[in-house]
Amino acid sequence: MSVSLHGPIGFSPLVQAVSWQDETIILLDQTALPKSEVYLHCHSTESLVTAIQNLVVRGAPAIGIAGAYGVVLATLEALKLSDEKARIALKFKLKTLEMARPTAVNLQWAVGRLKKIIEDWKQSLNLDLVKLLLAEAKQIHEQDIACNHLISKFGSELLKEGPVITICNTGDLATGGIGTAFGILVKGYQIKKTSHVYACETRPVLQGLRLTSWELHRHSIPFTVICDNMAAALMRKEKISAVITGADRIVANGDVANKIGTYALAVLAKAHSVPFYVAAPFSTFDFSLSSGESIPIEERSHDEVLSVLGDNHPEYAIPVWNPSFDVTPQSLISAIICDRGVINFPNQERIKASFSRNQP
Amino acid sequence: MSVSLHGPIGFSPLVQAVSWQDETIILLDQTALPKSEVYLHCHSTESLVTAIQNLVVRGAPAIGIAGAYGVVLATLEALKLSDEKARIALKFKLKTLEMARPTAVNLQWAVGRLKKIIEDWKQSLNLDLVKLLLAEAKQIHEQDIACNHLISKFGSELLKEGPVITICNTGDLATGGIGTAFGILVKGYQIKKTSHVYACETRPVLQGLRLTSWELHRHSIPFTVICDNMAAALMRKEKISAVITGADRIVANGDVANKIGTYALAVLAKAHSVPFYVAAPFSTFDFSLSSGESIPIEERSHDEVLSVLGDNHPEYAIPVWNPSFDVTPQSLISAIICDRGVINFPNQERIKASFSRNQP
Repeated sequence: MSVSLHGPIGFSPLVQAVSWQDETIILLDQTALPKSEVYLHCHSTESLVTAIQNLVVRGAPAIGIAGAYGVVLATLEALKLSDEKARIALKFKLKTLEMARPTAVNLQWAVGRLKKIIEDWKQSLNLDLVKLLLAEAKQIHEQDIACNHLISKFGSELLKEGPVITICNTGDLATGGIGTAFGILVKGYQIKKTSHVYACETRPVLQGLRLTSWELHRHSIPFTVICDNMAAALMRKEKISAVITGADRIVANGDVANKIGTYALAVLAKAHSVPFYVAAPFSTFDFSLSSGESIPIEERSHDEVLSVLGDNHPEYAIPVWNPSFDVTPQSLISAIICDRGVINFPNQERIKASFSRNQP
Repeated sequence: MSVSLHGPIGFSPLVQAVSWQDETIILLDQTALPKSEVYLHCHSTESLVTAIQNLVVRGAPAIGIAGAYGVVLATLEALKLSDEKARIALKFKLKTLEMARPTAVNLQWAVGRLKKIIEDWKQSLNLDLVKLLLAEAKQIHEQDIACNHLISKFGSELLKEGPVITICNTGDLATGGIGTAFGILVKGYQIKKTSHVYACETRPVLQGLRLTSWELHRHSIPFTVICDNMAAALMRKEKISAVITGADRIVANGDVANKIGTYALAVLAKAHSVPFYVAAPFSTFDFSLSSGESIPIEERSHDEVLSVLGDNHPEYAIPVWNPSFDVTPQSLISAIICDRGVINFPNQERIKASFSRNQP
């Protein structure tokens, strides 16, 4: 599978969240959006890890792509050492990189793909290896763009006419291409199925308010931002055609880890007879886990929640729980939309059957 | 019914959200919490209306009390005019006052109680009328304190041991006394039933994060603040003994208008087999409406949602939907806890039967 980094004509991403240029990873700094479009240049694995942890780049597929380029960077850094030291240093760097964030499996998956090449490389680390790794990283990047295209195609076929609710950000900023759930919305709008997008603001980091609204604005798709706690009232007030979300990890039985708030939307969708769709590339599947209970859920700093107080902080500490993700059980999912096809009412058997039919 | 403004011994509110002193309404400025305890002195009806609209004072029962004192203030202002002009001016002032916020019925209810006295007053407006009105306003205030006590008693009897989830603020700041839902939590903690309180931050105005956490801290009750979209994940992770909320209006069939996000919590509670309780004084009932669909839902400024962007606003306008309240259908409510008793699985018949048994 090889496609241009710009994807199919007329269906290009508007920005590149991650790119590689002159031994540098260039990241669109998502913490500065929606006000400013600023790019951060990562010249070291360490700075990339920090950028991933600080959410300069986020979104499971985009983190995967950044991680792949990160392996190239780490190898270039290791080349400066003697071969024995280089292998040890590289191993340590890659461990740090793949552990930068724990929940989205795409990071481990992408780093893993390049690690395999390094493990199979029997010579000293050298520039030929770097070339090989860069080719693999670019292939991961290109494959993600192609996956986005297929997901948007399959997903938009599934859509009914009407407004859609989404959460977090799953567009250009979260992937290599046009996005997962977001790509479906874009395609759905082009074919006059998606009439309006309701973007949940997505507390605490506000990916919906800051990032999805920015993308919707740039695509000229009619939209409204709501606080996360308004989705239920909206479903009661208006006939919503679907809730569509991305995924950070999908395990063997079809349980899905995604941005905190996704599980609530799934329960609410079921209660209002609204289809609940999850869109993700095949790289988001983790068949090593049998159910969602085993997915490691990242808990992040209290400051993410409390910064909303601005200069209105009390003198005492406010206790906070801040899980970044939750798990939606497969029983609440109407379909998983993947680049390899649509899996209706996903469970272990149907996922297995679907992928054995649709080999890449 | 006459109780001290400090309520039963050992069970006093920690602050007074609203008080009357020397022809002035004193409001604890809730917009400055949790950082600062600042009091605003309202010398005119106009400044009170602005304070109510700007959420300096909020919470259905507290707005009712403020509204009652507001009628006294309006009458004092009217006295400065000739009698004919005074009646017209007063009528206009009271209309503005009772329409300051549309959803909580307590404001209209309290203003209505004092309006009745004015309508029945056949002499010229004078200081004797003001005295009568002030006595009525103080009675409304005292009754609310007594109601809070009864609600906390009935509610805490109903509670099972374990952690509780609540939304918005229903304590000292929202009422005359110890609070509605919050009073139950305080009492529940005293009798070792409530082990922990999870306070939903309550976007967009953050009454949970700013006000309920401030009250919980002052009462030394163990608590954690969560973003509203985390309640579902919490219910899945931990055995929650109850969700308890206040109410802004309860209509004849038992449907409840309350802070936006309440309806979502009710759906989630049902899906997780968690009892869902609504606590409110009798003054929150509006028997003139047969179902929740007729309750006017206040929509507030987009800025309330967007201010969270701080200095990260884009150049374009972000479309927002900002309803302040939602309606929870009676079918999702395990019990309404009122000062006149507990109504299990509320519907029109059970509410009617309960109140005909429990006349004040």
